Amino acid sequence: MIIVMKNGSTKDQEEQVNRTLKEWNFQIHVIEGVEKKVIAAVGDKRRVDFGFLESLPGVERVVPILAPYKLVAAEAQPERTKVRVGPVEIGGDRLVVMAGPCAVESEEQLLRAAKGVAEAGATFLRGGAFKPRTSPYAFQGLEDEGLAMLARAREVTGLPVVTEAVDLTQVDRVAKWADIIQIGARNMQNFGLLRAVGRTGKPVLLKRGLSATVQEWLMSAEYIMAEGNPHVILCERGIRTFETATRNTLDLSAVALAKTLTHLPILVDPSHGTGKRALVLPMAKAAIMAGADGLMIEVHPEPERALSDGEQSLSIPEFQRLMEEIAPVAELAGKLLARLG
Amino acid sequence: MIIVMKNGSTKDQEEQVNRTLKEWNFQIHVIEGVEKKVIAAVGDKRRVDFGFLESLPGVERVVPILAPYKLVAAEAQPERTKVRVGPVEIGGDRLVVMAGPCAVESEEQLLRAAKGVAEAGATFLRGGAFKPRTSPYAFQGLEDEGLAMLARAREVTGLPVVTEAVDLTQVDRVAKWADIIQIGARNMQNFGLLRAVGRTGKPVLLKRGLSATVQEWLMSAEYIMAEGNPHVILCERGIRTFETATRNTLDLSAVALAKTLTHLPILVDPSHGTGKRALVLPMAKAAIMAGADGLMIEVHPEPERALSDGEQSLSIPEFQRLMEEIAPVAELAGKLLARLG
Amino acid sequence: MIIVMKNGSTKDQEEQVNRTLKEWNFQIHVIEGVEKKVIAAVGDKRRVDFGFLESLPGVERVVPILAPYKLVAAEAQPERTKVRVGPVEIGGDRLVVMAGPCAVESEEQLLRAAKGVAEAGATFLRGGAFKPRTSPYAFQGLEDEGLAMLARAREVTGLPVVTEAVDLTQVDRVAKWADIIQIGARNMQNFGLLRAVGRTGKPVLLKRGLSATVQEWLMSAEYIMAEGNPHVILCERGIRTFETATRNTLDLSAVALAKTLTHLPILVDPSHGTGKRALVLPMAKAAIMAGADGLMIEVHPEPERALSDGEQSLSIPEFQRLMEEIAPVAELAGKLLARLG
Amino acid sequence: MIIVMKNGSTKDQEEQVNRTLKEWNFQIHVIEGVEKKVIAAVGDKRRVDFGFLESLPGVERVVPILAPYKLVAAEAQPERTKVRVGPVEIGGDRLVVMAGPCAVESEEQLLRAAKGVAEAGATFLRGGAFKPRTSPYAFQGLEDEGLAMLARAREVTGLPVVTEAVDLTQVDRVAKWADIIQIGARNMQNFGLLRAVGRTGKPVLLKRGLSATVQEWLMSAEYIMAEGNPHVILCERGIRTFETATRNTLDLSAVALAKTLTHLPILVDPSHGTGKRALVLPMAKAAIMAGADGLMIEVHPEPERALSDGEQSLSIPEFQRLMEEIAPVAELAGKLLARLG
Repeated sequence: MIIVMKNGSTKDQEEQVNRTLKEWNFQIHVIEGVEKKVIAAVGDKRRVDFGFLESLPGVERVVPILAPYKLVAAEAQPERTKVRVGPVEIGGDRLVVMAGPCAVESEEQLLRAAKGVAEAGATFLRGGAFKPRTSPYAFQGLEDEGLAMLARAREVTGLPVVTEAVDLTQVDRVAKWADIIQIGARNMQNFGLLRAVGRTGKPVLLKRGLSATVQEWLMSAEYIMAEGNPHVILCERGIRTFETATRNTLDLSAVALAKTLTHLPILVDPSHGTGKRALVLPMAKAAIMAGADGLMIEVHPEPERALSDGEQSLSIPEFQRLMEEIAPVAELAGKLLARLG
Repeated sequence: MIIVMKNGSTKDQEEQVNRTLKEWNFQIHVIEGVEKKVIAAVGDKRRVDFGFLESLPGVERVVPILAPYKLVAAEAQPERTKVRVGPVEIGGDRLVVMAGPCAVESEEQLLRAAKGVAEAGATFLRGGAFKPRTSPYAFQGLEDEGLAMLARAREVTGLPVVTEAVDLTQVDRVAKWADIIQIGARNMQNFGLLRAVGRTGKPVLLKRGLSATVQEWLMSAEYIMAEGNPHVILCERGIRTFETATRNTLDLSAVALAKTLTHLPILVDPSHGTGKRALVLPMAKAAIMAGADGLMIEVHPEPERALSDGEQSLSIPEFQRLMEEIAPVAELAGKLLARLG
Repeated sequence: MIIVMKNGSTKDQEEQVNRTLKEWNFQIHVIEGVEKKVIAAVGDKRRVDFGFLESLPGVERVVPILAPYKLVAAEAQPERTKVRVGPVEIGGDRLVVMAGPCAVESEEQLLRAAKGVAEAGATFLRGGAFKPRTSPYAFQGLEDEGLAMLARAREVTGLPVVTEAVDLTQVDRVAKWADIIQIGARNMQNFGLLRAVGRTGKPVLLKRGLSATVQEWLMSAEYIMAEGNPHVILCERGIRTFETATRNTLDLSAVALAKTLTHLPILVDPSHGTGKRALVLPMAKAAIMAGADGLMIEVHPEPERALSDGEQSLSIPEFQRLMEEIAPVAELAGKLLARLG
Repeated sequence: MIIVMKNGSTKDQEEQVNRTLKEWNFQIHVIEGVEKKVIAAVGDKRRVDFGFLESLPGVERVVPILAPYKLVAAEAQPERTKVRVGPVEIGGDRLVVMAGPCAVESEEQLLRAAKGVAEAGATFLRGGAFKPRTSPYAFQGLEDEGLAMLARAREVTGLPVVTEAVDLTQVDRVAKWADIIQIGARNMQNFGLLRAVGRTGKPVLLKRGLSATVQEWLMSAEYIMAEGNPHVILCERGIRTFETATRNTLDLSAVALAKTLTHLPILVDPSHGTGKRALVLPMAKAAIMAGADGLMIEVHPEPERALSDGEQSLSIPEFQRLMEEIAPVAELAGKLLARLG
C-alpha cells in the first residue's frame, strides 16, 4: 500500500508510520516527491484493517494496491466458474433464463406461471415465498406454504427453483426446498446471512445492493466463498441513482466490468432493474450483449392482479415473445439458450 | 389516490380501472382534463399494494396521496415521543450524547473509553460487540464476550449501553445486555430483524440506510412500532452519493425535515457521517442546530490503534473538547446537555 | 394538476388556493378524501410556474399531470424524427456511427483517425476543437485551427463532421464548419447556448448532463425545438452515480425509456459512458439492443499518446473489429449499418 | 504519481511506462510488491494529463498524489482570503448575509424586498436578472431591465448587489452593474464563463454544481484565479442525490471539508439547498456551525406570488426572525453579523 504524507509532516510522524508498518511486517520504501513524501509498504495486507493508518498524525491518505477480494478474483482461477444445477449449467456456453412471479400468491397462480414459463423455454422457476417489503402493511409472502408450492411446481414442470431467503431463520428451509438460494439486494451486506448460505454448500444467487459498488458486491461474494461454497452466481438488478423515471438504474456496464474482475457467472434482472414492463425486453437483449450469462424475468399469469410488482411483470404471452426474441441475440453473443432435458 | 390515464386510453380501459377500484371499496371521481383524464379514488388505501394499478392498460401513473406510514407520523400523536432509558430521556429538552469505540476490542480498551466519555459528560456508552464488515477478513467483533464487557463498563461508569444487533440470532442476547438495541444502516431494511427488535419492547436506535429515502426510513420505524414498540429513536449517519471526499454525505436537511414528519426523536452520527476526525466537531454542532435530539460519537482511547474506523474516532481529550464546545450550542438550540445522576 | 392540502388545512387556506387557480383560468374540482382534501385543477398549465402553489399556507404538495415538454413528446408527431445530414439519415432504419478522436490534436493525427474510421465504415467524424476540461492546466483544444482541420478531414474522407460548441461565442463558427453541432454534457442546461444552436437551424447533438433526469434532458431538447429547429439528436453518455469503478454509469434504460417518450433519435456514447476501452465494445452492442439509433465512439490512431481520454479511446484496428462485430447486432435490431455513398 | 501494474504485466510493458515517464522528466522508483509491481514517479505533474498512462498495456491504474489545484489550495497562502466589497469583508470575522428574491420581477417587488432585507440586517442584495430555467416556457428574468432595477435598489438601500451572469454575453453588463458576479450551479463547469468572470477582476460567487465533487468545485475556482482574479467566494447550494423529499441535499460536510482544503471563503444557500421554506432557518443555523462565512437566503415580499422558487422563499417577517435567530449562532461560531455603515 502507499501512504501519502501531508505537506509539512514531521520526521517523528514519519517514524511513527514506519514503526507501525514494521510491526505488521511490511517492507518500507520512502519516496521523496517534489512536494509530498510517499511511503510504499510491501506485504500481505489483505487481512489487516487500514483505516487507522490514515488517522496517524501527518498522514494525508492511504492508497491500497491490492483488491480486497481474493477467491472471487478473475486471477484466482484460470477458468470461469460454472454452477451446475441439475441438468443446467450457469456460466458456461448456454444462456439461462429464470422466470416466474415476484411472489408466490397461490398454488393456482404459481402453477399457471410455472407451466407458462416452462413451455416458453425458461430453465428455472423464480418466485418469492418470503418477500421483503418496504411497508409492514404490504403482502409479505406465503412463507413455508409458498416453499411447498414451489416444490410442487418443480415436480410438475421439471424446472429447478430459485427463491429468496430473507433472514437467517429461513436458510435451512429454503436450502431444503430450493435449488438455488437467492440473496436479495437489501441483504447483500447481511453478513451473517451470507455466511449461513455459504455453509449450506448450495448454489447462491447474490443480487447487487441498491447502493453497492462492484467491489462491495464482489466482497459479499467473497463472504460466501470464504465459507467453502464456490457456487456463487451474481445478479445485477439496478442501482439507486437520482433518476426516478425508472425504478432503478440498470447498470450494464457493471456487468461488462465484473466479467473482467471475477470468474463468477453474472445474471441480469431487467424487471427490477427498470420497474417498467415495456423496458424489460429491450434491456434483456442489451444485458445479453453486455455479457450476461442469464436473465431473471418476472412473469405473472395476470399481471394486473399481482400482489406485488405487477407493473414490471410480463404476461405469459409477453414472456413467450421475449424468449423468441432473445434466442438469436444469445446466439449472436456466442451462447445458445439453455434447455431442460 | 390519483390515477392518470394515458392520452388515447379507451373507455374500456377506464372501466377496468374503475371496476378494480370499486372492488377495493374506493369512491371514484373522474376528472376530464384538457389532454388527460384523471381518476381520483377516495378510500383507506394504506393496506393495499398499488403497483399493479399502474400496470393496467391505459394507465399512465398512479399518485398516492397519503403517506404510507401511520404510527410514526407527526399527526399520529400530539406530543413528541420521549424515550426514557434509566435516568435519561431521549427526545425531550435535553441533548443526549452517546459515545464510545466503534468496536469493543478488549476490556481494558472499553473501560478506558467508557470512563473517559463518562467523565467528559456522555450519557450513553456506545460500542459494537457484533460488527458488520465489508470484508470477511476484517475484525468482526468480540461477540458475546464484547456484550459482557459492555455490561461491566456500565456497572463501572453508570452509563447505559447502546450496541448493535447484526442479525436475528443476536436479538435476545443484545436485548438482555443492552439498554438500547442499535439497528445498523445496512440492516435498515432487514425487516425480520426490525420485527424482532420490535417484539423485545426495548428502545431501538434505527440508523438510516446508505441509500434510504426519508420515507423508507420512517417505514422501517413503522415496522418496529407496528410490533407494539413505541420506543424508537432515529439516527442519521450519512447517505451514499457521488461525493467521495467524505466517507458519506451527512444529510442534515433530512433531520430538519424528519422533525416535521414524525414525532420520534432523531440523533446524528457525525463520525460515520463524515469519516474524518476533523469534521466531527463542526458537524456535531451543525447537527444540533438542524434539530438533532442527540449525537453519536466514536471515541477511542488510542485512535491510532483502533481495529476499525480509527480515522474517524476522537481521542478522549478531543471528545472532552467536543463536549465543552457543544454545551453552549445545545443551550442556544433550547436544550441542555443531558447529565446522569 | 392536483393540489394536496395538509391535514388540518383551513377553509380560508383552501379558498386562497381556489382563488389563485381561478385567476389562472383553471377549473376546480374539490375531492374530500378520508384524511386529506385534494383539489384537481383543469387547464393548460404548461406555461405557468407552479412552485409557489406549494408555498401557499395549507398546501402539502402539488402534483403536475402533464409532462412539461410539448414539441419533443412522442405524442406531438406520429412519425419518428429523421435528421438528414448529407447522404445519411439519423433516426431512420440505419444505424449511424460517429467516430474519431476526443480532441483534434494535429492535422496528421486527425487525418489518420478520419481515414481509419472511414475505411472501417463510420458515417461521421467526431473530434473536439474546443474541449471543456476540469483543469485550467489541461489541453483545451486547437480551437479555430481545429475546426479547419476537421473541414479538411471531411474533404479528404467525405465524412460529415460533428464537433462541440462549448460556448456562445463559438456557435457561428462551429455552425459554419460542422455538419452537426454537439452540445456537451456540462452544457446541457446552458440555456443561452441551447437557444443559440436552435437558431442556427443546424442539426444539434444534445448530450445528457451528468446528473440530468430524462425529463430535464427532454426539456433541454425542447429549448432547441422551441427556436424552430427540429433537427435534434439526443445522446446518452453516462450519468454520475456513487459507482467509481466506471467513469460514469451508462444508463441504457434511459435510452429504452426515452424512445417511448420522444420522437427524437437517440445515440449512445459508450466511450465516455464507461471510460474504459475494454467496455466499449460490449456496451456498444448493448446500446444497439436497448434501441439506440447510433453510436459515438472515441478512436485515436495512437491512444497511448492521446492528449485527452486516451484510456477510453479505441485504436483503429480495435474500431475495425467493433464495426465488424456490431454489424450483425444492428441487423438483429432491425437496422443496417448506415453507409456513405 | 503511482502507477500500479497488472498481475502478469511484462518487462516490455513496464519499460514502455518507464520510457513515457522519462520523456516527461519524471524520476522513477520501481517497487516489487508481493503480487503487484508498482512504479512511483516523482516530478511536477500538474500540467500533464494522465489518463493515457492508464491506457498503456500492462497498467492497472494510476494514482495521483498531488491535488490538481494549486492557487486555491489552503497551502498556497498562509492567511484565509478576505474578499472586500465596499464596506463589507467576506471571509473575515463577520458573517455576511445575502438576501433577496430569486428573480427580479418588478421594481416594486425588488424595492420592497431590498428595503425589507436591509432593515432586517442583510449586507447584500441578491436577485436574478437572468434566470436559467429548466423549461423554455418559464419566466426567464427581466434581463437588462432587471440589472438596472438592482442598481436602483442599491442606491436606495446601500446594499451591494450580487447577481448571476448566465452566459458569456452578459458578463460585461453584469460586471458593470453588480458588486459580485454570481456563477450558478449549472454553469460551474462553463469554463469560458469562468475565464471571462476571472478576467473582469470583480468578486465572483461560485456555486457548487449539482453533481460536482468538492475537488471539481475547487478546480473551477482555480480557473477564475488562474486568470489573475483572487476574489473568489464559494457557495454550497445542495447536491443531487437519490433523495427527493428535499429539492437537493445540502452538503454541509463539504463546507467543513472545504475550509480545510482552501483559503477561499464559503457561503451556504439553504434556500436552494432544501427547497422548503420550513427548513431554511434550521439549515441556516447549521451552516454557520459547519463553518460557513455567510448565507444566501431567498426573500420575497409575497412568496405566494413569486414567479420562481416561491416555495423556498421567506417572507420579510420570516427573514427578520431568521436574522434575529442567527445572530447568537454566529456569535457562538466566533463571528459577528456583518453590518453596513
